[in-house]
This record gives sequence, structure tokens and C-alpha cells, in this order.
Amino acid sequence: MIEDKNPKRTPLSELGEFKLIEHLTEHFEITQKSTVKGIGDDAAVLNFDKKQIVVTTDLLVEGVHFDLSYMPLKHLGYKSIMVNLSDVYAMNAKATQVTVSLAVSNRFPLEALEELYAGITTAAKHYNIDVVGGDTTSSNSGLIISVTAIGEVKKEDAVLRSGAQPNDLVVVSGDLGGAYMGLQVLEREKEVFKVNPNSQPDLTMYSYIIERQLKPEARKDIIELLEKLQVKPTSMIDISDGLSSEVIHLCKQSKVGVDIYENKIPLDPQVITTCEEFNIDSTTIALNGGEDYELLMTISQNDYEKIKGNPNLTVIGYITEAERGMHLVTRAEEKIPIIAKGWNALKD
Amino acid sequence: MIEDKNPKRTPLSELGEFKLIEHLTEHFEITQKSTVKGIGDDAAVLNFDKKQIVVTTDLLVEGVHFDLSYMPLKHLGYKSIMVNLSDVYAMNAKATQVTVSLAVSNRFPLEALEELYAGITTAAKHYNIDVVGGDTTSSNSGLIISVTAIGEVKKEDAVLRSGAQPNDLVVVSGDLGGAYMGLQVLEREKEVFKVNPNSQPDLTMYSYIIERQLKPEARKDIIELLEKLQVKPTSMIDISDGLSSEVIHLCKQSKVGVDIYENKIPLDPQVITTCEEFNIDSTTIALNGGEDYELLMTISQNDYEKIKGNPNLTVIGYITEAERGMHLVTRAEEKIPIIAKGWNALKD
Repeated sequence: MIEDKNPKRTPLSELGEFKLIEHLTEHFEITQKSTVKGIGDDAAVLNFDKKQIVVTTDLLVEGVHFDLSYMPLKHLGYKSIMVNLSDVYAMNAKATQVTVSLAVSNRFPLEALEELYAGITTAAKHYNIDVVGGDTTSSNSGLIISVTAIGEVKKEDAVLRSGAQPNDLVVVSGDLGGAYMGLQVLEREKEVFKVNPNSQPDLTMYSYIIERQLKPEARKDIIELLEKLQVKPTSMIDISDGLSSEVIHLCKQSKVGVDIYENKIPLDPQVITTCEEFNIDSTTIALNGGEDYELLMTISQNDYEKIKGNPNLTVIGYITEAERGMHLVTRAEEKIPIIAKGWNALKD
Repeated sequence: MIEDKNPKRTPLSELGEFKLIEHLTEHFEITQKSTVKGIGDDAAVLNFDKKQIVVTTDLLVEGVHFDLSYMPLKHLGYKSIMVNLSDVYAMNAKATQVTVSLAVSNRFPLEALEELYAGITTAAKHYNIDVVGGDTTSSNSGLIISVTAIGEVKKEDAVLRSGAQPNDLVVVSGDLGGAYMGLQVLEREKEVFKVNPNSQPDLTMYSYIIERQLKPEARKDIIELLEKLQVKPTSMIDISDGLSSEVIHLCKQSKVGVDIYENKIPLDPQVITTCEEFNIDSTTIALNGGEDYELLMTISQNDYEKIKGNPNLTVIGYITEAERGMHLVTRAEEKIPIIAKGWNALKD
């Protein structure tokens, strides 16, 4: 499938820990004014005078969060950074630095880790962040990636999950459900490949949703857009587990209720056609699919004129008093309670 | 062996991810002035006006960094924090916050994670730091702990690895080799236990070195002592991989050489007697043992009077010009080159 057969395989044992870290990290350049000292000491040294800093961390585990049979390592490196930057942007902050730690088994040759780091480097360049530290160690089984991202924000600009007020509009960036349907296509092709390794599937008609799964982008552009439009959301969260989970997080922390309108949820045509093909309800996917890394926010009605008609932002509902509860208003104008499904691999 | 048989076992699947995080993190209090927002949003928000911040991260993997057959989970939680704080103190900084991420397989019941978090909580209290974030996810095999620690330091106080100058004194805190010899004793008892599960070993004579292995302390007190003595080291590093590795790191980054005197290396009497019992050379252990989490620093000769006679600090050698190389001066007054062994699990 989507796999490079790389003939060069340098065993990690040839390098040892110190040389491995040196080799993998030597090409990280320092570009941020706030980075005083990057990789190579006991800790990185950062300087953020008169700003608040935000810190977030995520752990990606092989077999739980990714499957290397269809996830190229370079994409995985890129995605591991996106997952964390998305949390920084969800604070309305500017991402500035990351640290990357790896636990890796001996089955990975050096070239595999170089691929992974190539993806990390690409992400760092595109998003203008510094890689300032990390740890590389061995693992008994699979690959584990731990990323911590750091960002800065002016005190008055930070947006928490807890600021939504009744009558605020609920707004989502981009479209939902693509990453999950991309995963369904990849899983299906993996099964086909197991039966017939010579199959050459044409995945062009799924290109958008596969890219949403393999190479998601964190919405730095939305934070910049909001600044340009002079809109400060009242609350914000990134959509990593699915819209319904995130809506519930916002409402619980803001102590409010919500009405979300099914017919307003933005879906890409490829999501709709693929859902039809797989015989799955597209609203269910948008609500519970996860991994879209879009931003869910609430804004004051006073800001509506500023965002109206912007193709990147869709109003999908409004905030109510807490006692009104959290509901989805269906196309049939039925009100059904929103329930968290989200990621729950611990149940397996 | 050192194991509590806890009859209560709540499967993690009963809680799911969100409730698990909530349950494990609800007792973390915010005590740091610099913590604006802790756990519960996309990212923590910190504020360090006019100070530099330091960031460090470490990954602990079951079967590589710890063995649960003799490492109680509470100790493991404590140690996972110490490993990271030690890196913060090695910058001459004050540790202020940590984030903790876990990947955990279903074989761990809730009570096991509670034990782990009890150790983390104890560490946070003793060292006066806030736990401000993290991620909990499932793993296919063992337990993986990723900790990121954050600290603050006045611009002029940060100590890097790169500042050592010829004629500076090489100083080490505490004593060396204890953690490694404690591990040897625990490994031996594990083998005995396999053969005879009813054995009740008396480990009193190894209590210091076992504690060095199971419950190491990061040397916050040394940073406070240096401040009191008005000594700013010219370079500093924490001893996690063994003295020889750390000496080499300092010398390479400072572009200097070193003479370390074998007869000056501080050893606890229990290390000496246990080395005799195991028929291992104690200098080899002090040089390569690792996990002592003491601080290795260089200070100007002008500061010698300030530290002279302090029981916490031992002068073990002095910095030379780079071309003189890095040497151990043995008791027989032979000069032998210092070679890095350190941690190298990737070779296995």
C-alpha cells in the first residue's frame, strides 16, 4: 500500500542513545525569539516576558492511535505535532516550541526514525515552531511518541473552555467527519491488501478524507483569521474526540446548555458519499468521528456580522441556560440529547 | 516481595477515558503563583513575567526503566517526577509545574493508577510544584509514563552545561553508585523469590541503596544551598546516566578537558560493602551506575572557600584545557581516559 521500500537499514544499536539523539536532532534550527536554549542541555530555556505561556501534551501509541501498515512514518511525525499544536491554538495562543520524546523498539532501523523526524521537521517549518528538547529511549513493543507543545498568548487574549454564555453562537471551523471516514477507507484497503497483496486500489475519490486522516492540519490560520476579524471567542476547544464530546466539555465547563442544528453541521461532499457507500449516518460520524482537529468555539452574537459568510467558519447552534440541557435538533426538528462517545479505547 | 496485595480491582473500562482523567487528577491543587490555569482545558496557562522558563521531558517505559515486580507503583510515580525535576535543578532553576501522560494497558486496575498518582501527588507536595496537565491513553503492552517539567530562573542565574573553564573545580553533590547497587540487590532478591516465593529476605543492611533506587530525591536542596552560599556554578548537569557520561557531556559542551580523582569520588559505606559482596569495583559503579540524580557542577576556584567542608558537596577534580583530554586519576596515580558507557538499552 502507501509504503516506501527503503533498502537502507541501519540498526539503532550501531549508534547508541546519545549519538541517536544527536543524529536525529542536529537539523533543528532555532527560529523563535523566545527560545534561549534549545536541545542539548538538561532542559530548554525559554523567555516570555509579559505574556502568558500555554503548555499541552499528548501521547501517541502504536496500535492505539496509529497503524504503521498504512500510516507512513513521515506523516506520523507531522501528525504528532499537529495534535499538540491544535491544543495550543484552541487556547487562542501562538505555538512557539515543542519537545518530542520517543520510545522505539529495535525493529525500527535508523532510517525509519529519520522519516519520522522528517515529518516533525516539516511540521516545525510550516508552523514556525522550534523543537527544543526530548528524550529517546527503547521500548519492548511498539512505537510511542510523546509531544509537549508550548505557546504564548497575551493575558487578555487567552480563551478557555469555560467562558460560553447563554445566547452565544456555536461556531465550528472547516468540516467534520473526514478523518474518521478516511480511516474507514484505509482500514478497508488494508483488509483487501491482506487478501490480495497485488491489488492497486485507486483511492483518488477518497483523497480529501484520506489526507484528513493521514495529514491533518492544526488550524493556526483560524487563530490568525479571528485576530484579523477582531473576534475573541468566549470559549474554545479543539475537536479531537468528536463534536459531541467537545460540545459537552464546553457546556460543562461553562455551566451552560446548547442546541446544535443537525442541518448546519458542515460536511465535505466526500464524507457524505463515503458515508453512503459504507452505509453509515453522516451526522453520527460528524458527532463522534474524532481526529478532525477543527476548532469549536462560541462567540457573542455581537460578533456575528464579522464572521458571517466566511467559508472557514460555520454557525451550528447556540448556547442556552444550563437547565435547558444539551441537544441536537435533527432535520426532522426533533430534539435529542447529546451524549459523549468520543475516544474510549480503554473499553476494548 | 515489596508488594501490597490490594483486593479491590476496578477495571479501567468501567470509567472510560474522560472519567479516568477526572478521577485521577481531581485532587491536584494549584499552589504556584505562575499557574493561571491547570488541568482541564486544551492546555495549561502559565505566567512568568521577567523570568526565563526551563522545560524538560522524560519517558519511562516498563521493562526498560522500571520493573513492577519490585518497584511499587507509588514509588514509581514519585520517581517519574524526580527524574524530571532533577533536570530542572540542573539548570539552577526552581521547578514549578509538571504535566504527566500515561499509556496503560487493561491489566492495570484503577487502584494501581491511584497508587501511581499517590506517588505523583506526594512528589508534587514535597517539591512544591503544580501538576497542570497530561494525557491518559491505553497501551497494548506495558505502562509508559511521560513527564514534562517546567521551571523558572532569573536570566542571570541559569547554568548551562557549556560554561566550564580550565582550572574550575569539579564538584558533585551527595554520593554515587547507590541507586545502581540497590538495583542489583533487588534483582538478586527477585531471582530468589522466583525460586522460593515464601522467602522473607532481610534487606535492612541495604536500606540506603534500595531507597536510592526506589525513591530517589532530586537535589532541590542543593540549588537552595548554592543560592545561600552565593555560588553560581559555571556549568551543571544532573547525574542520571553515570558520572563518566555526565563528565563527558560537560567537557564536550564546554570544550575543556578534566582530571577526576578516583580517591575523591564520594561513596556511601553501603555501596562499598555491597560492591565487595557482589565482587564489583566500586569506582566502576560510581562512574557508570546511573540513576543517582545527584548534581555534577563546576565552580570557579574563587568559590572554593564557600563550599569547603560542606558535607553535601565534594570536589572530585578540576577542569583542564581541552587538549589535555578527559582522565580519571586512579589511586595508583595512573591516568586512564574516561569513556562513556551510560545507559544504552538500544544495544540489547
